[in-house]
Amino acid sequence: MDPALRALGEFGLIGLIRRQVAHRSPGTLLGIGDDAALLAVPEGRNLLVTTDMLLEGVHFQRRWGRPRDLGRKALAVNVSDIAAMGGHPLYALLGLAIPPDGFTLEELQALLTGMEEEAATYGVTLVGGDTCGSQSGLVLSVTLVGLAPVGPALLRSGAKPGDGLWVTGMLGGSAAGLAALELGLRPGAEWPADLHRPGWLGTEEEAAIQAAMTAHLTPTPRLRAGQVLVGCATAMIDVSDGVASDVGHLCAESGVAARVVASQLPMHPGARVVARLTGRDAVELALRGGEDYELLFTSATDPKGLLSGAAPDLWVTRIGEVLAGEPTPKLVQADGREEPLAGGFDHLREPAG
Amino acid sequence: MDPALRALGEFGLIGLIRRQVAHRSPGTLLGIGDDAALLAVPEGRNLLVTTDMLLEGVHFQRRWGRPRDLGRKALAVNVSDIAAMGGHPLYALLGLAIPPDGFTLEELQALLTGMEEEAATYGVTLVGGDTCGSQSGLVLSVTLVGLAPVGPALLRSGAKPGDGLWVTGMLGGSAAGLAALELGLRPGAEWPADLHRPGWLGTEEEAAIQAAMTAHLTPTPRLRAGQVLVGCATAMIDVSDGVASDVGHLCAESGVAARVVASQLPMHPGARVVARLTGRDAVELALRGGEDYELLFTSATDPKGLLSGAAPDLWVTRIGEVLAGEPTPKLVQADGREEPLAGGFDHLREPAG
Repeated sequence: MDPALRALGEFGLIGLIRRQVAHRSPGTLLGIGDDAALLAVPEGRNLLVTTDMLLEGVHFQRRWGRPRDLGRKALAVNVSDIAAMGGHPLYALLGLAIPPDGFTLEELQALLTGMEEEAATYGVTLVGGDTCGSQSGLVLSVTLVGLAPVGPALLRSGAKPGDGLWVTGMLGGSAAGLAALELGLRPGAEWPADLHRPGWLGTEEEAAIQAAMTAHLTPTPRLRAGQVLVGCATAMIDVSDGVASDVGHLCAESGVAARVVASQLPMHPGARVVARLTGRDAVELALRGGEDYELLFTSATDPKGLLSGAAPDLWVTRIGEVLAGEPTPKLVQADGREEPLAGGFDHLREPAG
Repeated sequence: MDPALRALGEFGLIGLIRRQVAHRSPGTLLGIGDDAALLAVPEGRNLLVTTDMLLEGVHFQRRWGRPRDLGRKALAVNVSDIAAMGGHPLYALLGLAIPPDGFTLEELQALLTGMEEEAATYGVTLVGGDTCGSQSGLVLSVTLVGLAPVGPALLRSGAKPGDGLWVTGMLGGSAAGLAALELGLRPGAEWPADLHRPGWLGTEEEAAIQAAMTAHLTPTPRLRAGQVLVGCATAMIDVSDGVASDVGHLCAESGVAARVVASQLPMHPGARVVARLTGRDAVELALRGGEDYELLFTSATDPKGLLSGAAPDLWVTRIGEVLAGEPTPKLVQADGREEPLAGGFDHLREPAG
């Protein structure tokens, strides 16, 4: 372990985190420093609670990006879950296992800074956690507590036949960014000397790849969009496993079928470039890549007006529709053929990234 | 990965956990199966939230015990944190990273069964979590949400000079059990053939070692005791790092000094036996071993009557007193010498177990 971290020790580190966590909401009656955090909940509101882990070697490689971005992402993926319920995130807890070597106190502080920045953006206070050494890689486990919207909750289970199937933003960017990182490309860096650069790849294509890496390393949770969709969306989920899986989850929970039209998928420009670069299928990246952290939702009405007021720069696209029938989604290919839409990433089946 | 687990896949596993989690409190409006759990909170009550990680190779070795006990412990250590605030645990979330080999679906189900049993004992419902593959060991990250007691919260910061310093149960058992496991002893098993058995070690001593291993592998959180101490205890903490560290935490948060009397420490019988077996100091195990998950608290009055009604089988011992002065605790040795009481286990400084 880094000598500065070792000298600090577990309790010194907790003290450091406690001092660094300046942002404190009025509901935080007691944050870091006791056996549990003591938190106020407004009267008559229900809670939303979610947890997501990021493991080195499974969800990320440390060499891919800055610790600050990793801190941001660890919080962002949890905010995305609260967004998908139309909720308001409030309190975060961080479980942190620190690797035995190659991770410095400066990197740890940068990670905490990134998490704090993201927390401040979304009105979240870091109220507690757990710190230990790890025998292998860095482990981040974030739990987020928030408030459910007033009135009926926005679940995965409310989709009705006839609803449109919509998605915010663009798809396939994160998977394309991951593929680019695996090729050795890095955010803000020159094209690697040992990687063949095809003649067709110009400045615009390189910018698209950079945007894809950004989408992967620092996804933007669609919190405001999720909140304004309460009352409009009939069901909602965030795109973490990939649209193919996530449409499947919506169908299974709602007891409906759905049809996704491949040609209507809002493709991230980086997905097309990386697909061409690696000989993969861009539609495949968009459907099964995962980690886009966009909102996938169903609605009986057109949500564009609602969203353009709250999140004017955010695209929203109708990618299909909800149907009656067995809860197995279908994909309409470019040539009009209809086929079953099989799931995306499965953490227990795929090799780790 | 175990073929049965791989065949089940991530979503199959989530489905399995969802079916296995039969115990459901009335406040669980929506448990496993959406982006976040949706939970009710009684009006006018504050929340307690805590998180604790258990990493293979750091906090445990899989060969030491049954997966069922590991599931119990993962929940118990979090219940202990809520107990130390005098609270009522309600909802748990489980982050689970499954190792690439040597961990079967049966073992995973046993782990979940243990967690469920412990949850049912303490009125907790498993409402959500996150599942993924791990590249190295098993990782369990549990978050527990509970209710704070009605009225003023029971914190680490309320100790006053003149208060007695008390502890429930016995100390050093967990550290002794850990040392025994490291020697190759196992719960319920014969003495290992390759380990020298000293002549002085009889049936009674062996039973004490067995009890110590039980204390380490399946600690009992003192939930009821913590709850009845609300209004009596002025400050409270659970003994997770070791009494030496934990008295230090109480002193630091309360801005008081304290004196711990070595001869008054309620020694676990296994601590004496293992200390003799390994040439270690039993008082050292009790003070700096950690993981006893007893309650350490301060009180202006004798808490025995209160505790004997609520937890009749639970010992409670006065081990010292709170003093005015610099927040550095002191230890009175058997020979009457007084020395500074230095801290116990530090996860960033010590080699992993």
